Amino acid sequence: MGEGARPRTGVLLTVAYDGTPFSGFVYQPRARTVEGELRGALAKVDPGAGRTWPASRTDAGVHASGQLVSFDAAFPLPPRGWVLALNRHLPDEIAVRRAQLVPSGFNPRFASRWKRYRYRLLLDRVRDPHLVTRAWRLGWKIDVERMVRELDGLLGTHDFAAFRSAHDGREITVRTLHRVALERSSDPRILELVVEGSAFLYNMVRILAGTLVDVGRVRIPPGAFLRALRSKDRADLGETAPAHGLTLEHIEWERPDGTGDPWPG
Amino acid sequence: MGEGARPRTGVLLTVAYDGTPFSGFVYQPRARTVEGELRGALAKVDPGAGRTWPASRTDAGVHASGQLVSFDAAFPLPPRGWVLALNRHLPDEIAVRRAQLVPSGFNPRFASRWKRYRYRLLLDRVRDPHLVTRAWRLGWKIDVERMVRELDGLLGTHDFAAFRSAHDGREITVRTLHRVALERSSDPRILELVVEGSAFLYNMVRILAGTLVDVGRVRIPPGAFLRALRSKDRADLGETAPAHGLTLEHIEWERPDGTGDPWPG
Repeated sequence: MGEGARPRTGVLLTVAYDGTPFSGFVYQPRARTVEGELRGALAKVDPGAGRTWPASRTDAGVHASGQLVSFDAAFPLPPRGWVLALNRHLPDEIAVRRAQLVPSGFNPRFASRWKRYRYRLLLDRVRDPHLVTRAWRLGWKIDVERMVRELDGLLGTHDFAAFRSAHDGREITVRTLHRVALERSSDPRILELVVEGSAFLYNMVRILAGTLVDVGRVRIPPGAFLRALRSKDRADLGETAPAHGLTLEHIEWERPDGTGDPWPG
Repeated sequence: MGEGARPRTGVLLTVAYDGTPFSGFVYQPRARTVEGELRGALAKVDPGAGRTWPASRTDAGVHASGQLVSFDAAFPLPPRGWVLALNRHLPDEIAVRRAQLVPSGFNPRFASRWKRYRYRLLLDRVRDPHLVTRAWRLGWKIDVERMVRELDGLLGTHDFAAFRSAHDGREITVRTLHRVALERSSDPRILELVVEGSAFLYNMVRILAGTLVDVGRVRIPPGAFLRALRSKDRADLGETAPAHGLTLEHIEWERPDGTGDPWPG
């Protein structure tokens, strides 16, 4: 380390956002993105900070309550100082909920153990202004029992090759889901698909949600998920549900040494 | 009735809105208002319709899930037709939730029996992007038990002369509250003040909420409500809570003959 150089420390942010006004998470030079706003705020607080590393690249319109974003800091602030300083420069649609100190170079993408997504369905014949950007509204009759039964057999480790957009070119498509549930919210009009897994393919949760709805409205016969797990054919599944119903809710991560305890802070 | 004139019928709409982008309910020529948007949509569906009459004139930023608005229709549509046609021309922030046929000239302001308001408080040290326009965030410690006790004695009929903005010039200030409660929402960070009453003075619910918070954070001593009921002095109460925490949730109304049953529709 040269003279005058400061030892850099990593900072891990837990970030929440309303995805509505953004063209997704990832920085784009000519579009409003969550990462663009984070970089702008960071440049004001700590012009010497390194680049930002997200755990997950959420699409346009997708929300988050527990996105993780790391960067290397040049300016020494305590965790609470990062929360206050960054929020002061961020728009209302984005908030840093928490900051933790991590080793320099820490990238949450590689520290993620599992993630939880929530897909929100609104069963209502009429638009609700308070939920219009937060839930996929289904104005037709739907068979919820049928949807609950359709989830049987999805838990565990499977080859989810059929459950992804054509834009996903990954070779390994085996994933493990350890929680898949359709829950009633405290608002009886709202159904929530909760999915937890080690990792997800591109559009996987939205394809799960869209297919579940297609089964529930009897547009495709029950057993679609099991058929698609066998055939690995996207055509055995239903539509991709719209982005605005989806929230990246939580990411469980571990420190590099695997003990699972967060750093003090 | 002249030749060619159509017998006019009244239509009563239940309207929900996110008050965030509007300069209040009431029409203003040079500002975006809920009534302005409703008039615009109505002009497209039924250019011969009469003017709109709300049950309540909500302020800028205040939300509604059960506002009532009536007008006289020239075009004969069934209730469900009004819902669909108007929603097609309204922005996402406003929705007609229901339409009912009422006598021509019906004004919900004079048919209102009681109203329910809900004031939402978010107890969180950090901004939440999903609630920023929907709840008043309190970033400090607050004594909830103290707030619950403060509500004792508010129920029933009192002279609420102290509980209004200086802009309220009404002579009769006696009002009846038949429900006042502080409830925990399913989200443990959210407290909701629910108030039901025959009628309200200007800013009355926001003054109730603001004072309750001032008592909860020990800025004013307990017993403020009872002191103000006796003194009729606004100075005995706390601040006026911000508009964006408030929702006009429900208006109970009755037909002119007092039976309380809505018209078929």
